[in-house]
Amino acid sequence: MRPLTVESLNPSISQVQYAVRGELAIKAEVYREQLKQTDNNLPFDKVISSNIGNPQQKGLDQPPITFTRQVAALMEWPMLADLAPNVFPRDVVARAKELSEEIGSIGAYSHSQGVPFIRKSVAQFIEDRDGFPSDPGHIFLTGGASAGVSLLISMLITPPTSGILIPIPQYPLYTATLAQHNGVVLPYHLDEASGWSTSVESIEAAVEKAHTEGITPKALVIINPGNPTGALLDESTQVKLVHLCEKYSLVLLADEVYQANLHQPESHSFTSFKKVVAQTRSPVPLVSFHSISKGVSGECGRRGGYFECTNFSEEILALIYKMVSVGLCPPLSGQIGVDSMVRPPKPGDESYELWKKETDTIHEVLRTRTRTMSARLNALPGVSCVDSPGALYLYPQIQLSKSAQDAARAAGKEPDAFYALELLDETGICVVPGSGFGQKEGEWHYRLTCLCPGVDEYVGKLENFHRGFIERYGA
Amino acid sequence: MRPLTVESLNPSISQVQYAVRGELAIKAEVYREQLKQTDNNLPFDKVISSNIGNPQQKGLDQPPITFTRQVAALMEWPMLADLAPNVFPRDVVARAKELSEEIGSIGAYSHSQGVPFIRKSVAQFIEDRDGFPSDPGHIFLTGGASAGVSLLISMLITPPTSGILIPIPQYPLYTATLAQHNGVVLPYHLDEASGWSTSVESIEAAVEKAHTEGITPKALVIINPGNPTGALLDESTQVKLVHLCEKYSLVLLADEVYQANLHQPESHSFTSFKKVVAQTRSPVPLVSFHSISKGVSGECGRRGGYFECTNFSEEILALIYKMVSVGLCPPLSGQIGVDSMVRPPKPGDESYELWKKETDTIHEVLRTRTRTMSARLNALPGVSCVDSPGALYLYPQIQLSKSAQDAARAAGKEPDAFYALELLDETGICVVPGSGFGQKEGEWHYRLTCLCPGVDEYVGKLENFHRGFIERYGA
Repeated sequence: MRPLTVESLNPSISQVQYAVRGELAIKAEVYREQLKQTDNNLPFDKVISSNIGNPQQKGLDQPPITFTRQVAALMEWPMLADLAPNVFPRDVVARAKELSEEIGSIGAYSHSQGVPFIRKSVAQFIEDRDGFPSDPGHIFLTGGASAGVSLLISMLITPPTSGILIPIPQYPLYTATLAQHNGVVLPYHLDEASGWSTSVESIEAAVEKAHTEGITPKALVIINPGNPTGALLDESTQVKLVHLCEKYSLVLLADEVYQANLHQPESHSFTSFKKVVAQTRSPVPLVSFHSISKGVSGECGRRGGYFECTNFSEEILALIYKMVSVGLCPPLSGQIGVDSMVRPPKPGDESYELWKKETDTIHEVLRTRTRTMSARLNALPGVSCVDSPGALYLYPQIQLSKSAQDAARAAGKEPDAFYALELLDETGICVVPGSGFGQKEGEWHYRLTCLCPGVDEYVGKLENFHRGFIERYGA
Repeated sequence: MRPLTVESLNPSISQVQYAVRGELAIKAEVYREQLKQTDNNLPFDKVISSNIGNPQQKGLDQPPITFTRQVAALMEWPMLADLAPNVFPRDVVARAKELSEEIGSIGAYSHSQGVPFIRKSVAQFIEDRDGFPSDPGHIFLTGGASAGVSLLISMLITPPTSGILIPIPQYPLYTATLAQHNGVVLPYHLDEASGWSTSVESIEAAVEKAHTEGITPKALVIINPGNPTGALLDESTQVKLVHLCEKYSLVLLADEVYQANLHQPESHSFTSFKKVVAQTRSPVPLVSFHSISKGVSGECGRRGGYFECTNFSEEILALIYKMVSVGLCPPLSGQIGVDSMVRPPKPGDESYELWKKETDTIHEVLRTRTRTMSARLNALPGVSCVDSPGALYLYPQIQLSKSAQDAARAAGKEPDAFYALELLDETGICVVPGSGFGQKEGEWHYRLTCLCPGVDEYVGKLENFHRGFIERYGA
């Protein structure tokens, strides 16, 4: 028989790129295994995974919210409430009982769109947040935001002449999914000089360019708060973006998974696109994505999230339902995680004080760390770093000398990937080079998370490495 | 702006069909809501969901395995082992501790391929089952078998001229996924007269037909035990199928999710394709799928499963890894469910007796029920039903009179869908018409699960309905 080769596979697969878990992350895992050997000859004693927003990862310090996990433990084994009657707070027991009555066993498939009762809670959360109605029938629970984004992109793209507008830099899920489904990436650049702001004009230019190339733009992706940039949109820009979608008949895909990660709340607040669309009574079809993986929840491993469709016809909602039904249902552990996120304990509930303390701490730690890290990175020669008001990341720009660029090319790497590889080899810190997110020609960046404890030691290592790199290759 | 319409979406989406959660299942949900009103005017007092293999669904009686859920509860809130020290068996506490040390928090993303430690356990399970080595590096944990099947099909298909050989009748995930990815369904018929056996000749004929039509067959799907048929392959047929894959350079996709649901173990045993490929030293690329949703586990809601690749190059394994990494990782609740499935308590462990009793009961109930139901359905006029030796379903053939067929067509329905709709309207029993799985022209079937308690009342309703239907439309 002919062996199965890469050439015999779907050619789109080879086009897919996802740097967040790419070459560097794979090498970091190899180092992690190597460190378990006493005679490992490595110049560091631990691997620090700053490549991915994974708050509960080993070695990081964001603990799960106790309320969420207590409810989940009771859902796993409901008899526990009777067997260990004094262990669980009363509101936890009541919540688990309420969910059990609605769901039955979490070992059963639920409604493919997600448990109706939990979708009602999500709708209430959205109404409370925005002050506008939300319909549980327009909400789809998902296995994390990625699953929803991937589904919507696969439905919107008609290969090979349709495309989606993607911010640069972007979270590479978007380009990876477009590559898989033969959609065209229509890039628009965010402006680093003004804190990674979004320019309506640059999007409009990208739309016009697509038209001249015979590509139909189907949707506009906005990541707010930004990833990797951490930037927050102001409401007036959001209104303009909605009008732009009206003008060009674009679906607005609003990735709002970092809406609860706000580090400068006094100056930078979050406004949902749902609110802007409702307020302006816009007819723009909007899909807004949220997730339990980020925010104070940080429950990445549960795989939970939702998307809400606004201005979608019943016919199209039925098509989305059909597509999710083929995958049966999102994980119940993720669905109950969504319930805990949108219905946290209230003042007066037995769990409230602990919940408040836990979530306040998470916010405070992340704020302080983001500020400290951006200040110290900014102080380094050849580094400039926007002080992110949101999300979990920094995205510093690094100037790389001609000799560094030559060394990189000699090694067959992009210059920023070369920098990141040397950083990993020398310090055990794993970041993602800017080439994985997109950047202007001749600029170099990397993304790192603000989740690592011991900020002094951590940034100290980055500083030492950077100074050594400049010594080796010049400024 | 132009509104978003079905016509503006990816045209493949409209081609996707998935009857298991289609029109009938949606109507059943409407009835279920209606029953909550006292004045509902319905001729039944409950909806019986026989459309889907969902053992822990409300109203059915397969309880979760206690061991699985105790381990999961401790993983959710590890402190429980100390707070309720006498509640958990010692082996449960030890297992949860072991898993926690390997995984850390189940709220963190794991390795995209699945927790390495759990993949080692899966490899050991496969080795113990087959007597041949298994490599954890070739195993991918998934969010249920469906997620894996969908990924592999999307990678193998090069639109528009490649196809995959699919048994008829089939589980509609296969045709749905092919429709989504613009692959061609290459059907081959199973033989109902010989207990839904698989004929190598009929597959070969389907391959030759594809070749004359300019379609390249990429893979052969075998569902063993069958869904919806429940049929089990004998080893000699399996060897021939492997040789056929060699001859035509086909990837063998072996859906083996029902491998633990065996109702006639004295005469019908399960042999994995991994074992057959290893024994014959065949170079055929094989992907075998398993799941925690079926078997005695029945943990559908956790979304857990795995696939093992045999005879795949490292280069292609790396591509699969890249594709799963875009989705970050399978749900941890599913991954630890896989661990419990492949490493159940052993004789001598504190949990063993209970585990043995629970699993023996599940097997026994399903065996008895399958036998009783098939015997009673077979005794009905115009119904013939193979007594399934495996899986969770029966797939009776029903003869429908000319007048029933006319009435169906007048209502715009396939005759078997018409029968199933009247069954639902009259009894509240929801089954899936054979047209959702595929059948020969002019034959009619439906699939129902053997999971419903109260077999007397349940089959009694089916019998009464069938006799009434014949009275209305003739035999």
